[in-house]
Amino acid sequence: MRQSRLFPRTIRREPAGAESVNHKLLVRAGFIDQLMAGSWTLLPLGWRVVARINRIIREEMNAIGGQEMLMPLLHPRSVWGETGRWGSAKDNPLGAKEVMYQFKDIRGREYALSFTHEEIVMDLLRKSIQSFKDLPVSVYHFSTKFRNEPRARSGILRGREFLMKDLYSAHATEADLMEYYEKVKNAYSKIFSRLGFTYRVTEASGGVFTENRTHEHQVLADTGEDTIFYCNTCEWGQNKEIFEGKEGERCPSCKKGKIIKARSIEVGNIFPLGTWYAEKMGVLYTDRDGKRKPVWFGSYGIGPTRVLGALVEVSHDEKGIIWFPQVAPFAVHLIEVKSQKSKVKSFAEEVYNKLSEENIEVLWDDRDVGAGEKFADCDLIGIPVRLVVSEKTGEMVEWKDRTDDRIELFSLHRVIDRLKEMQ
Amino acid sequence: MRQSRLFPRTIRREPAGAESVNHKLLVRAGFIDQLMAGSWTLLPLGWRVVARINRIIREEMNAIGGQEMLMPLLHPRSVWGETGRWGSAKDNPLGAKEVMYQFKDIRGREYALSFTHEEIVMDLLRKSIQSFKDLPVSVYHFSTKFRNEPRARSGILRGREFLMKDLYSAHATEADLMEYYEKVKNAYSKIFSRLGFTYRVTEASGGVFTENRTHEHQVLADTGEDTIFYCNTCEWGQNKEIFEGKEGERCPSCKKGKIIKARSIEVGNIFPLGTWYAEKMGVLYTDRDGKRKPVWFGSYGIGPTRVLGALVEVSHDEKGIIWFPQVAPFAVHLIEVKSQKSKVKSFAEEVYNKLSEENIEVLWDDRDVGAGEKFADCDLIGIPVRLVVSEKTGEMVEWKDRTDDRIELFSLHRVIDRLKEMQ
Repeated sequence: MRQSRLFPRTIRREPAGAESVNHKLLVRAGFIDQLMAGSWTLLPLGWRVVARINRIIREEMNAIGGQEMLMPLLHPRSVWGETGRWGSAKDNPLGAKEVMYQFKDIRGREYALSFTHEEIVMDLLRKSIQSFKDLPVSVYHFSTKFRNEPRARSGILRGREFLMKDLYSAHATEADLMEYYEKVKNAYSKIFSRLGFTYRVTEASGGVFTENRTHEHQVLADTGEDTIFYCNTCEWGQNKEIFEGKEGERCPSCKKGKIIKARSIEVGNIFPLGTWYAEKMGVLYTDRDGKRKPVWFGSYGIGPTRVLGALVEVSHDEKGIIWFPQVAPFAVHLIEVKSQKSKVKSFAEEVYNKLSEENIEVLWDDRDVGAGEKFADCDLIGIPVRLVVSEKTGEMVEWKDRTDDRIELFSLHRVIDRLKEMQ
Repeated sequence: MRQSRLFPRTIRREPAGAESVNHKLLVRAGFIDQLMAGSWTLLPLGWRVVARINRIIREEMNAIGGQEMLMPLLHPRSVWGETGRWGSAKDNPLGAKEVMYQFKDIRGREYALSFTHEEIVMDLLRKSIQSFKDLPVSVYHFSTKFRNEPRARSGILRGREFLMKDLYSAHATEADLMEYYEKVKNAYSKIFSRLGFTYRVTEASGGVFTENRTHEHQVLADTGEDTIFYCNTCEWGQNKEIFEGKEGERCPSCKKGKIIKARSIEVGNIFPLGTWYAEKMGVLYTDRDGKRKPVWFGSYGIGPTRVLGALVEVSHDEKGIIWFPQVAPFAVHLIEVKSQKSKVKSFAEEVYNKLSEENIEVLWDDRDVGAGEKFADCDLIGIPVRLVVSEKTGEMVEWKDRTDDRIELFSLHRVIDRLKEMQ
């Protein structure tokens, strides 16, 4: 697309009150805009990245038999009352009143905004599950979550309103749940590998819902607000809450490696919830032996908007964002260095059209501004490949990777070949 | 996909309290589920149809330069206060308090749930628009809207929570706004034609925002809750609120045709809003002459979940839904009539695999239930083409269109050719 038409323009100064790198860079580069504390508009560039993140997540959820759907965001109090999660955590270890938006409408009906969807899935399952033949079920959606965090901070990493992909699975037996739980864990690992992250899977507490450990996918990041401990040799890892040893000790699992302490950003969390929800809400199925039994339930979450922020935290420099190609908003940033000669304009147009014909997505900086401003914006926005056409380059195209200072001159033909190889 | 794994199963009995055809059929066939009055889960089949609807809308919005983004759903009272739309319509012709969900959180902050997004777009524009060079802007999103309708009825046609694609455009001049308004009107006509609707574009009142007429896309449907008048010869049409003539009169526009009265479902609504919002909210740009001027603003909406319901209202029979191919959840419903002989099962699997390899989307009824139940579910779900493999058909495949009683026998090779021709 032509950058002269892209909404909105980049911003030179740092946004007020921005503490985190993702906040500063995503706002300045025009990916997100803050409506109020903890609430963000995904601008066209930001939406493009999130759409790519969602696509990767969707492919891996479908690959393990997840069925996409979409559940409502406004929930009746009655459903949340069934598990006791409507209440205050002061009175009730399960209560979520402090972070759940709850209200009464002008007709006196009480609602919660989607804090999570376990209760809603359970309500759906109990209407449709009859026998063991109806299990297992694996459903997911991409939808909005609302959490009234006391302090919304860290840019888009911790919002009061954010996107979540949440998958829910129901099973006849614990063994079937745990087998599927491992499948989801592996699917999550594939997703975070495909997204380009360096991450660790760490054990975390099961809380009050399950005696099982839960698992978190943690992206290694110096700016992360979590702390994890992991083995430098095997796959063992635990989060700070449950880890009882010391940094530098021998790994309790492989007995060979050493325990490393690191800062991290939690990007995925999976819960083998067991039968607690089904017992509370009466989600029963008839087994082969004719007995009514509660379903075994798991829930699995990834926050695509949090992933957007985490990508920036782990991949940027002092000039701006550095997108991994698989999530970049465009494959190529084409800079037309304005010139009196009309040849440059027509050659830029030719490059743009040829690349577009090859289904290579190009942001074409056709604006009437100086080359310096264009190069600065290009580094800020962070598209993986910068192409320049100018009077100087003539009929050749200048190629520069965002991650590299080296500049090379290629024919348009060669540029297309290289870009196609990268796809 | 295998129907034995599809969530949930179909329902034999009509849902309690269902008045409209879309409510009865979409619930029974497993496309939607009601969480509470006016609030629906889009189940996997329903989500597939909405994804197809959204794709058609997205293509046409992009074709007229619309840039996709995503705005928040929880809005601060302050923004809605700027236009006066926070208030009650009893005191204020613009007020929307009666249908807007408004609440105060436990920290005393006041919010509205997204009733529409004009104020939010305006807040975004005033942060980024500086001069005439930054205009025009055309942005859209697919997101959730909340309207506390006194009586939620008509199935998914009128929910309290529903999906909306809303496009917003901002311009330097009235002429530019009106030119773009016509472009959007044409894009909407393309969308509704591609969706398979018989529709009319009717003039409607501009309300308090503009002296201009607004326009509605109205699908002709006997069960619709709107009434429109249109010419049987030219494109003239008006909704009931502004029409002042009588049915059967000569058309006031072409002077040749006759005025027809019809029931209809409003599926699109476009508003040339003018400068009212920009003046209230201070969305100004600097023109070529150095003067600060308010932007000209338009808003344009389509409800994809309403379209889902309208499609069922206009295309069904006593047995179930009849999906138009372009929005059908699957292209083909493959019925395997169970048999003692393993040949049927392996041939069904061969048909399924071959079609899948050709990127033809198949719902394969592999369930252990009788042929009668399978045929009934097939008609209820309404996929355009039914293929049957059974002991009787041997190595041939039985083909039946959902809209036709004729049954034909083809080789698998011929079936694939026919389906590819239809794509």
